Amino acid sequence: MPLNITQKLIKGHLVSGDMVPGSEIGLRIDQTLTQDATGTMVMLELEAMGLDQAKTEASAQYVDHNLIQVDNKNPDDHLFLQSATRRFGLYYSRPGNGVSHPVHMQRLAKPGKTLLGSDSHTCANGCMGMLAMGAGGIDVALAIAGEPFYVKMPQVWGIKLTGELSDWVSAKDVILELLRRHGVKGGVGKVIEYYGPGVKVLSAMDRHVIANMGAELGATGTVFPSDDEIKRFLKEQDREDDWSELMADEGAAYDINEEINLSEVEPLIAKPSSPGNVVPISEVAGTPIYQSYVGSSANPGFRDFAIAAQIVSGKQIAEGISFDINPTSRQVLTDLVQESHIASLLQSGARLHQAGCNGCIGMGQAPATGRNSLRTTPRNFPGRSGTREDSVYLCSPETAAVSALTGKITDPRTIGIPYPKVNEPKNPTVDTNLLEEPLPYEEAKKVELYKGPNIASIPTMDAMPDRLELPVLLKMGDNISTDEILAGGARVLPYRSNLPEISKFTFEIIDKTYYERGRESVAHGGHAVVGGYNYGQGSSREHAALAPRYLGLRVAVVKDFARIHWQNLVNFGVLPLTFVRAEDYDKLVQGDVLELSELRTKIKQGSEFTITVKGKNEQIHVKHALSERQVEIMLMGGLINWVKDRQKKAI
Amino acid sequence: MPLNITQKLIKGHLVSGDMVPGSEIGLRIDQTLTQDATGTMVMLELEAMGLDQAKTEASAQYVDHNLIQVDNKNPDDHLFLQSATRRFGLYYSRPGNGVSHPVHMQRLAKPGKTLLGSDSHTCANGCMGMLAMGAGGIDVALAIAGEPFYVKMPQVWGIKLTGELSDWVSAKDVILELLRRHGVKGGVGKVIEYYGPGVKVLSAMDRHVIANMGAELGATGTVFPSDDEIKRFLKEQDREDDWSELMADEGAAYDINEEINLSEVEPLIAKPSSPGNVVPISEVAGTPIYQSYVGSSANPGFRDFAIAAQIVSGKQIAEGISFDINPTSRQVLTDLVQESHIASLLQSGARLHQAGCNGCIGMGQAPATGRNSLRTTPRNFPGRSGTREDSVYLCSPETAAVSALTGKITDPRTIGIPYPKVNEPKNPTVDTNLLEEPLPYEEAKKVELYKGPNIASIPTMDAMPDRLELPVLLKMGDNISTDEILAGGARVLPYRSNLPEISKFTFEIIDKTYYERGRESVAHGGHAVVGGYNYGQGSSREHAALAPRYLGLRVAVVKDFARIHWQNLVNFGVLPLTFVRAEDYDKLVQGDVLELSELRTKIKQGSEFTITVKGKNEQIHVKHALSERQVEIMLMGGLINWVKDRQKKAI
Repeated sequence: MPLNITQKLIKGHLVSGDMVPGSEIGLRIDQTLTQDATGTMVMLELEAMGLDQAKTEASAQYVDHNLIQVDNKNPDDHLFLQSATRRFGLYYSRPGNGVSHPVHMQRLAKPGKTLLGSDSHTCANGCMGMLAMGAGGIDVALAIAGEPFYVKMPQVWGIKLTGELSDWVSAKDVILELLRRHGVKGGVGKVIEYYGPGVKVLSAMDRHVIANMGAELGATGTVFPSDDEIKRFLKEQDREDDWSELMADEGAAYDINEEINLSEVEPLIAKPSSPGNVVPISEVAGTPIYQSYVGSSANPGFRDFAIAAQIVSGKQIAEGISFDINPTSRQVLTDLVQESHIASLLQSGARLHQAGCNGCIGMGQAPATGRNSLRTTPRNFPGRSGTREDSVYLCSPETAAVSALTGKITDPRTIGIPYPKVNEPKNPTVDTNLLEEPLPYEEAKKVELYKGPNIASIPTMDAMPDRLELPVLLKMGDNISTDEILAGGARVLPYRSNLPEISKFTFEIIDKTYYERGRESVAHGGHAVVGGYNYGQGSSREHAALAPRYLGLRVAVVKDFARIHWQNLVNFGVLPLTFVRAEDYDKLVQGDVLELSELRTKIKQGSEFTITVKGKNEQIHVKHALSERQVEIMLMGGLINWVKDRQKKAI
Repeated sequence: MPLNITQKLIKGHLVSGDMVPGSEIGLRIDQTLTQDATGTMVMLELEAMGLDQAKTEASAQYVDHNLIQVDNKNPDDHLFLQSATRRFGLYYSRPGNGVSHPVHMQRLAKPGKTLLGSDSHTCANGCMGMLAMGAGGIDVALAIAGEPFYVKMPQVWGIKLTGELSDWVSAKDVILELLRRHGVKGGVGKVIEYYGPGVKVLSAMDRHVIANMGAELGATGTVFPSDDEIKRFLKEQDREDDWSELMADEGAAYDINEEINLSEVEPLIAKPSSPGNVVPISEVAGTPIYQSYVGSSANPGFRDFAIAAQIVSGKQIAEGISFDINPTSRQVLTDLVQESHIASLLQSGARLHQAGCNGCIGMGQAPATGRNSLRTTPRNFPGRSGTREDSVYLCSPETAAVSALTGKITDPRTIGIPYPKVNEPKNPTVDTNLLEEPLPYEEAKKVELYKGPNIASIPTMDAMPDRLELPVLLKMGDNISTDEILAGGARVLPYRSNLPEISKFTFEIIDKTYYERGRESVAHGGHAVVGGYNYGQGSSREHAALAPRYLGLRVAVVKDFARIHWQNLVNFGVLPLTFVRAEDYDKLVQGDVLELSELRTKIKQGSEFTITVKGKNEQIHVKHALSERQVEIMLMGGLINWVKDRQKKAI
């Protein structure tokens, strides 16, 4: 049977499961990518697992998120990450090198490989003929330790590209067109695979733009072929040997079929506050702006900045506009400097920032209250810019640059100048020093992890006991979110690498006494919590499972769980149980003591069992939804212990 | 009598007093400079004074301090500042243009003029043959409103420069040499005036380096002649017409005489944690570093960055070093880009930051815990970097660049390469768009101040009543600092433009109930506080007087005052009284009510009077130290009211 590229990539990496859309498959992971916001916890997880050496072909740790150093915490994290990469045999990319995705593409991406990253835009490297997927931190930690990544077999959504882009229309408009058609849930459970004659007219970096924002459609991944353009790109990077061709077989079919005629794509814009809120730019033209922002992993290429520079060259941006230039990689910035584009931008009145994620993830460049910000970034969720009630529009670099000149949202086709032609740099920079190479094993094993005062190892967690007596420390209602379990934000997140400290914020919105009561419970075998429907909705942050676990949470009994939090509870060894009869919820009150006996046997033997409420004549029927693998994880006390055990056995 | 330059500048601007060192003189101010950290309050003060139009020849508002935009507060402040400059007829320099001092030098500085700035490094523009002085915000607000600046007539400290700088020694080492000789108090009450054949070999920007750090000696100002080099500099800036010669008269004398032979100056370094802690670099050579930092108003010139770039060109900085490049002006950055120096820095591994103050004032680039940071900045006070227990060394760009390569503090003379020769840019950038010009008055008067949600006008304050009954809300001990009166730091300072909000932190370290009790007191005529010796020591921040005043503080009775806080209390209409007999302090307790009758007459008639303690048979003898002008200010309820009145009379 002829295969499409996605199927080839999956088939070549399949370690378990069947390639039937919707069923769980296990995939071998060749490469991983972590950034500093998620990476500190990944490295602490590797430490807790007792990893000796990374088992992937290439794993890289980038420092691109937390570049604002207003006290010791971020620079201490950077040093910790560097020491961890040296210890575990990873590549290290220091602050100032740029955003993980373009740097990975330049230095490490390889057609035909799988890439798992603890960043939702990891899919960007699908532009290189890779199966590149974003995942949770511990998933990536497991991949580094050589474990497969488990995911539902996606549908393959074939998108045929035909025609050529018109003047003033660029790759960003193509992905905005897809978002216009299908919205932010259109890609869920799918890999988007591009093919057809239109692919050829898109450069590798243009494809990066399109693959990157596959995340905004909720897709599992985006895949482009590895063709002559990818060969050219790798040659430019002095890595021609890393190239191999990867094309769909003649006659390959797709689960879903669609076509985009590039010639018909118009300049588009995503209105506040969703990347799916896309309209033709004419609908909002004339809206005054405060900020125009060029950069981010959604427009990281040389051409994305060069076109903006050529548009503003010799002109002045409108008075009062903040024209923020956020370079995305050291190589591209160097090329832009050498080709005089940075000089053009500076002379037009731009603010040039350090290479990194910056304002795209709310680290600087927040707009003024109530003012409109026009950005080439991938997301405009409410408040993501840092300003609570912000108003962020997403667009192409062409639209951003033209609007910086006029001071209002402007269809770039109306500016009345010829569409500038961008010449690629004559001698593109290849910075082989961008990444510190992994140390040889003999040296690596001597490296000690460097931990600043705000970095704490993850404490050892015990296996699931066979008998537990657990007081119910909290009884909660429906729709408890992970923000209520453990808040995010600037007050809490600086402690992301310090479980003992961050756990102090656990459930504090619901009950300020929980932390103390939880800590006390640890010495007596821990505690339980009771909840209603949709328990654990919202952000996927792992800390919302890890912190309660650290405070003694062993069992959560609720009416039902939100999917990701349920997964996180399993990963960290908290038994997630649901009421067989929802009305049993009413039988429990805070302070009740749950007796669970022969628990290990019960978890193993079946999904349903009963809990006795101590001193009351009550039996509560509960069930779990663990797979066989997850039962094993649960009994061992969580994924970290499970992997630790496998690491030991492998020696 | 032949005059030196300082005397000429003072004589030409004297509006009151005699030129006798130590006696108060009033000076006409030609130009002012405000930055954004202090400028928001200055603009609110102008609003409160009812200013219609700036009365100076040129006043400029720079945005260089608060460039980190993690929420709406800083960008809102920027918009407020822009609107205020438009309303009052000031120049506006937007974020990204760079640090006030070099930008002012490039675009507005003029030999023979006086410059007052709400930034302690305002003295830097003394390099242009100006009398340039730092002052408190309200002093600058008054100067903008056309009022004289009152200061003690300084001694003039003549420093004769001879010889020429050796290779690997630059202007920074000259000012470090002066700090080595005299320490951080050596310049108090003095203007440092440089003369002699050595001046000629220093470029205008080199002189800026030396003048800037006159602040670190505590000097009132630093003055260089306006000679052919200044003419050359202004010509390069397309401002030759602004040049006029200013030299000391033949035979002019100085109050203090000193000589520095430039040929004998060696590479020096200021050890943690004082700029006065200077030693020859050989004493600390070999100390490992975490960070090397080039930039700030203490090394803002093209050559300061170019020399660093030429040193690292074609090489890689040591592994793990954060090599932070902080450009200081848009013009200089553009030149550095065009002359390929930025490319050299980037390729060596440097982190390129936005033009501005940045890490020099703790806005980013904080070092990791316990690691050494080597900086070309002017100050290394403990914690100023943002990291609480930091370890910052101050040095020249040569030393910073060479040490970045070796990873440890290194005498640049030992690196074993020829001293690079810096070629000035062939076509230096002149960016006349750097500053938005003041609006014509007819337009300006229509402008409304833009105030984001965190910006609040200064409330009107009443005149001093003739009769007061003031409960003593706090009785405090000795050495109460302004940090205890109103803390600084990241928790409090974001409310710098919002008196009602920032006042909530008043005295909270001493008594959390003060705020509520103070607010209540307002309706009943206010309150008093009682203190011991050295009341109000520490930081000069005006808010420590303004916030208590807003909460009803009318009188402070203490054993004695720290000088600057005393001045601030007067400025904001709080009557500062001292006990005639220190033992009267013991007669008062918190809760006592002080009766002050015929107060206005008593303040006017003499410095000593008595206060009755209500319901007790006690008389407290107190005195004030107000000058005639200050009595007037006090009776009107503070400087804002006083100027408001003069503005009205002037119409």
